[in-house]
Amino acid sequence: MNVEDNYCGFFEGTEKLLEMWFSCSDGDMEDCDVRKIPRAALESLLKLVKCEIISFKKNEQIDAYVLSESSMFVSKSRFILKTCGSTTLLRAVQPLLYLVQEYTGFDEVLDIFYSRKNFIRPELQLQPHTSFEDEVGVLDGLFEDGAAYCLGRVNQDCWYLYTLNPPDNFVGVQAPDQTLEVIMQQLDSKIMRIFTKKVCSTAQEATHRSGIDMLFPGIVIDDFLFDPCGYSMNGLLKGGYYITIHITPEPHCSYVSFETNAPQESYQDLILGLMKTFNPGKFTMTVFANKASVAANAPSECQECHFKNYQRKELQLCEFKNYNLTYALFAKAPS
Amino acid sequence: MNVEDNYCGFFEGTEKLLEMWFSCSDGDMEDCDVRKIPRAALESLLKLVKCEIISFKKNEQIDAYVLSESSMFVSKSRFILKTCGSTTLLRAVQPLLYLVQEYTGFDEVLDIFYSRKNFIRPELQLQPHTSFEDEVGVLDGLFEDGAAYCLGRVNQDCWYLYTLNPPDNFVGVQAPDQTLEVIMQQLDSKIMRIFTKKVCSTAQEATHRSGIDMLFPGIVIDDFLFDPCGYSMNGLLKGGYYITIHITPEPHCSYVSFETNAPQESYQDLILGLMKTFNPGKFTMTVFANKASVAANAPSECQECHFKNYQRKELQLCEFKNYNLTYALFAKAPS
Repeated sequence: MNVEDNYCGFFEGTEKLLEMWFSCSDGDMEDCDVRKIPRAALESLLKLVKCEIISFKKNEQIDAYVLSESSMFVSKSRFILKTCGSTTLLRAVQPLLYLVQEYTGFDEVLDIFYSRKNFIRPELQLQPHTSFEDEVGVLDGLFEDGAAYCLGRVNQDCWYLYTLNPPDNFVGVQAPDQTLEVIMQQLDSKIMRIFTKKVCSTAQEATHRSGIDMLFPGIVIDDFLFDPCGYSMNGLLKGGYYITIHITPEPHCSYVSFETNAPQESYQDLILGLMKTFNPGKFTMTVFANKASVAANAPSECQECHFKNYQRKELQLCEFKNYNLTYALFAKAPS
Repeated sequence: MNVEDNYCGFFEGTEKLLEMWFSCSDGDMEDCDVRKIPRAALESLLKLVKCEIISFKKNEQIDAYVLSESSMFVSKSRFILKTCGSTTLLRAVQPLLYLVQEYTGFDEVLDIFYSRKNFIRPELQLQPHTSFEDEVGVLDGLFEDGAAYCLGRVNQDCWYLYTLNPPDNFVGVQAPDQTLEVIMQQLDSKIMRIFTKKVCSTAQEATHRSGIDMLFPGIVIDDFLFDPCGYSMNGLLKGGYYITIHITPEPHCSYVSFETNAPQESYQDLILGLMKTFNPGKFTMTVFANKASVAANAPSECQECHFKNYQRKELQLCEFKNYNLTYALFAKAPS
């Protein structure tokens, strides 16, 4: 056994991802804003999750936080929290609902998306994250009409999702909205070494040497290189769009996630760029797009996606009330 | 509480469904036939499942058994076992592999499909059927490259599937093959009363009064009416095609399943016929079709399916190595 394979060296890169949208029952949202929640209240919230803020950047549309474990994005009507390791994200949902009620002017949850890939080592997670069933139990206790899904293989690579999918009178997010997430594993160890303090002394150096800065030229970057290794970055685009990348470089549990809400009619070129930048052994791709999104056809387009050297192992398409979702798993063809 | 709502009156109509295809490693399958397994051996196998044969019909391509709990179909290279109640179907898989090796000339499993809807009362099931996880455990112990899926909502209506989905060198079932399954619940109690001894004295009478005999005119029917209630039928068509219908009429746990491998370019008219015959409050539809099947486009056609008075609540499409699968859930619109 390689020394790096031992228990102490393990880190669960797999993030829990929560995205919530809020609205007002009286329809007047002019003065409502999730960013009205005070910083101290957010910090208390993150204590429940077992992580903390380590960097912050903002523009007119979005407050972007780099966390000790991943990222948080807060905008007018949307709250995104993404946390890796053995953090306890779902312990923050009920307190968050309270903070929204208390400070923001919003009084309704418009939609919720809780998702994650299967953990590499689920036995190291804390309640309620020890199983998806328990996670669903917490969410079902807070929301009516919550629908829980498992895409991919229950017994291998899969991706869990909890969302609201209520009957007929459901409005949901009407503005164009889309999310692409690419979760990469079995990464190129030469590339992963860039994201260690041994090779790079600053985050900026790692961002540049890896080519991350070329994925979205001109993007405003807030990056962080952990000691001895690990990397996080938030990138802000105009129009309320973000990208975020998180990297666990250790060879035996290497993991890179990429996420963006930037609208594109096709994500093929972007994904090709990610393959070139990170060279993963396998990756899952999920695309969410609502009816108003320019990416609305991305799901069917994904059926035709081809990535050189990769075979598509899984493809599933789901139609929800308001969103179409594509899940695909690609793995390197044996050479 | 209605007297019929009490515990004693509950019956789990939800079937476990196993379909296995066999082949020969040397390619010469002329003398191979699953029907070479002796009747006594099949009876022993069914004892492990906790059910027995109650009726039998055959034609040149297929041996069709009505069981005390659902049905069994045996043809040259395919074995289908479908059992409801608290039967223990998966306890028969390893013994079946032994019988196939011993009697049939086949020495390879070409593909396997184990599927079921979520149980109404899972706590009444016996091991390994108490959870899908345990069922997958049994199958993973017997097969390499088994892939387990959950379609629909993990926390509400869903449909579980285990199949082989191995890498590159996989051949699978090459002959045109397709299966439509429609699982209906919350049925019209006036129609369900037909399937009781109070209303009909013979199975033939129930088959005729319900209109089941008009679903596939000219089909050879083997039907059975249980005392005091419940109904099963197998129907044989030329070319190795079958239909099978199983009915649990009790109002508080009403359940009707319809299954066929008859090829149709579109199943819309057939499903409309089922809606007219049984008038369910909700139903799931699954369509499996391999590349050679005339039903290969049924999945995408299903996206456009409309059934009067019903709303589509779920739609998922999956691409497997050799088959495309569609899962859809429809429920009556509130009137």
